[in-house]
Amino acid sequence: MTWTQNIAADRFPAGSDAFPHRHLLGIAGLQKWEILYILKEAEHWVALNRSGPAKHDDRLSGLTIINAFFENSTRTLLSFEIAGKRLGADVVNMHAAQSSVKKGETLIDTAMTLNAMRADAIVIRHASSGAVQLISSKVDCPVLNAGDGSHEHPTQALLDALTITRRRGSVEGQTVVICGDLLHSRVARSNIFCLKSLGADVRVVAPPALMPHGIEAFGAESYTDFDSALNGADVVMMLRLQNERMQGDFIPSPREFYHLYGLDERRLAIAKPDALVMHPGPMNRGVEIASNIADHVERSAITEQVEMGVAVRMACLDILTRKARCVEGWA
Amino acid sequence: MTWTQNIAADRFPAGSDAFPHRHLLGIAGLQKWEILYILKEAEHWVALNRSGPAKHDDRLSGLTIINAFFENSTRTLLSFEIAGKRLGADVVNMHAAQSSVKKGETLIDTAMTLNAMRADAIVIRHASSGAVQLISSKVDCPVLNAGDGSHEHPTQALLDALTITRRRGSVEGQTVVICGDLLHSRVARSNIFCLKSLGADVRVVAPPALMPHGIEAFGAESYTDFDSALNGADVVMMLRLQNERMQGDFIPSPREFYHLYGLDERRLAIAKPDALVMHPGPMNRGVEIASNIADHVERSAITEQVEMGVAVRMACLDILTRKARCVEGWA
Amino acid sequence: MTWTQNIAADRFPAGSDAFPHRHLLGIAGLQKWEILYILKEAEHWVALNRSGPAKHDDRLSGLTIINAFFENSTRTLLSFEIAGKRLGADVVNMHAAQSSVKKGETLIDTAMTLNAMRADAIVIRHASSGAVQLISSKVDCPVLNAGDGSHEHPTQALLDALTITRRRGSVEGQTVVICGDLLHSRVARSNIFCLKSLGADVRVVAPPALMPHGIEAFGAESYTDFDSALNGADVVMMLRLQNERMQGDFIPSPREFYHLYGLDERRLAIAKPDALVMHPGPMNRGVEIASNIADHVERSAITEQVEMGVAVRMACLDILTRKARCVEGWA
Repeated sequence: MTWTQNIAADRFPAGSDAFPHRHLLGIAGLQKWEILYILKEAEHWVALNRSGPAKHDDRLSGLTIINAFFENSTRTLLSFEIAGKRLGADVVNMHAAQSSVKKGETLIDTAMTLNAMRADAIVIRHASSGAVQLISSKVDCPVLNAGDGSHEHPTQALLDALTITRRRGSVEGQTVVICGDLLHSRVARSNIFCLKSLGADVRVVAPPALMPHGIEAFGAESYTDFDSALNGADVVMMLRLQNERMQGDFIPSPREFYHLYGLDERRLAIAKPDALVMHPGPMNRGVEIASNIADHVERSAITEQVEMGVAVRMACLDILTRKARCVEGWA
Repeated sequence: MTWTQNIAADRFPAGSDAFPHRHLLGIAGLQKWEILYILKEAEHWVALNRSGPAKHDDRLSGLTIINAFFENSTRTLLSFEIAGKRLGADVVNMHAAQSSVKKGETLIDTAMTLNAMRADAIVIRHASSGAVQLISSKVDCPVLNAGDGSHEHPTQALLDALTITRRRGSVEGQTVVICGDLLHSRVARSNIFCLKSLGADVRVVAPPALMPHGIEAFGAESYTDFDSALNGADVVMMLRLQNERMQGDFIPSPREFYHLYGLDERRLAIAKPDALVMHPGPMNRGVEIASNIADHVERSAITEQVEMGVAVRMACLDILTRKARCVEGWA
Repeated sequence: MTWTQNIAADRFPAGSDAFPHRHLLGIAGLQKWEILYILKEAEHWVALNRSGPAKHDDRLSGLTIINAFFENSTRTLLSFEIAGKRLGADVVNMHAAQSSVKKGETLIDTAMTLNAMRADAIVIRHASSGAVQLISSKVDCPVLNAGDGSHEHPTQALLDALTITRRRGSVEGQTVVICGDLLHSRVARSNIFCLKSLGADVRVVAPPALMPHGIEAFGAESYTDFDSALNGADVVMMLRLQNERMQGDFIPSPREFYHLYGLDERRLAIAKPDALVMHPGPMNRGVEIASNIADHVERSAITEQVEMGVAVRMACLDILTRKARCVEGWA
């Protein structure tokens, strides 16, 4: 099965029927067709995951995948763990809380240890931007970034793009509003790269203190007034507000934030009538989003995002291990 | 294999050769024949687990089981994890300590996340009574209660009933004494429902402060004097005393508790000569039970309870996923 | 496949083509040929682990291995978990942090619980010397010591011996210097037993406060001056300095320790020109070892040690479960 059979050939450069990267460190390094390649492959896994209870494929049987999470996470870790296991791999989790890091080991030494155990893929979450790239330069196997500092969270952007594609037909030409703490959000960064690359119009909304300087250079239009940004929007993507930033310099109070930047029924009515509501989770209901909007049967795509997450991660694990497995689809 | 071939047909209503529930939330909702159905099925897994080292059955191969433990646990989590793995399922654990719950996510949002990942069964332990039922109403797959607050712990009651059945021939007609902190014990609640349903005489013993009001309505005879309750007992089931209740209003001191409600050699002699000693674990030796009684080769069934736990959980996971797997034995 | 076909027959006593122990509690109880037996078997797993991404062997399929870690660990736990999974076993981890131990359960009760769940092997790390042996006396399955107090860490010594054998041809006749906190090190203890048994000359170096009394009785030559000990050394094995001992009575300061007992370029030059550098990890760079020495492409065997760890643990899990699996190679 090659993806080129099912997708318009002109969307991909000639001869590029394989993913040319060894790691998945961020969206910034990917070309448009490479993003589309992953989304196309993910569709296969969406279908498998929906095919019934015995949703297994053993193509990664015998491979060792290490989820090295230096920062706590539930949904991303679960999603990667399930993705690896559904592909038949031996999945082991390394939690920071029990890790040698606390004993003073350097990050590179930890990486070289995982490598020496003959991992076939390492999935990393780390609180420092760039930590994942550093590790990738020291190991022999593919490294997948599961979120590093305020840098990138590429699988989140891919699952968001897959969700939009499935619900709106395409990302191209869609007007997507991203609202919330832009300054610290790796989700927003990866999404801006991904959405722009796929041809969306991206508007970003944040209070001035949470808006990064120079964000226009990435092709996003910046707003401080949420209502203005929502006018004509196809997709409204809310960001999670980190509790630790809820008080102090950045946010006066959750109540005031909700008043100015929370998504409620009145605001959603400013967007297009069939606009899609998205949130990477976990949600703070009543802070960044009203409960009835989060649960809106037709408009909210929030649980679908979670489902797409598993499929996208299965696609990435499959694609990136093809070279070692000597199967087609790598370059 | 249908269970009706091996069990007296008159114990089950005509046509009911399958378990009619989608979830296992508690014993309270089960009929007598439904309890017997699970116990009968568990026997199959006791045999498999004893059959040798390679004790595997792959009927849940490809299914995803999520153990979502919002409250710490060792033995119940291990037991469910081993049960799922022995049936060939992909088992993933979600620990509260690393969970989105700490980031302010609501319980329902967590449940919907697990559901969106296409779990085929979710096993839940939670500190709040009713939390498991709430989750079960929001997800598409079977939910198994692994203990919720002071409400129910149905697999514990089932494994206790299986242990009694195997050691005493039947639960019916047995006089079972349950002693300890009745007020907070989900183990006691589930056991009273189960034992009464199966036809046992149940006596409950606790200090007045730890005896729930109106427990007689459930068919249990209440005692404050342990010696009186033990007279003629077939089974003595001791409850674990939670450390956090060891001081203050409920218990004057561990020493005094042991004096009044601890099971020692003198007290056990009041029960029938072959009375069985049970404890759900983990034990506080010297607080609720004397060490020589806990270790009594013939009388103590405590390690057998642990063994039956794995078998009962295998039975529950198998039975509740039959509908999705389109195999016989569901309704 | 019997190991005797590939190894000089005279190294093993006649008829002893199988490992005669039920548990792996320490090196102290092993004869020379028994150690060689494990190393020989480990070679098979080194080859498998290097054979490609699908490095699986299903001989432990259906077996349940419980990693019961009462003390935090990353690399040893990961290593045992990967070893068990590569052999096809169902591996479950019991973390102390979530354990019944915190609820007041005795160690023996925990052991009997794991046993009742029909574990086929139990891997234990515990802060108390002797705890692993205690557990082994209470369970029906093989117990593997993954480090107990300051007693033994046998798989570490075995992986070190395998590393030396592969890099230097043999352990026999090698001059091995072990430097650091000898007093508290189970790694050093197991290594001294193992290296002496295999015929190495062992020199131990430590500040007087960290040198155990009577260590010469084990056949090791003790030094307080590192430079003298290094003269003519084939292997330099550095021990990890525990952070909690960095200040106070044992060590004046990390800086002073490094000055006297750290391995740097000048010191390594005193050893033989091709001397091997080893460290059990995790390393404190700049405290017990200089960074350029730790990373030395030709001299440092530190990452190879990690790799050998997985292979040695696969060998031990395979060998110790043979009796239950009724395959050859046990006695």
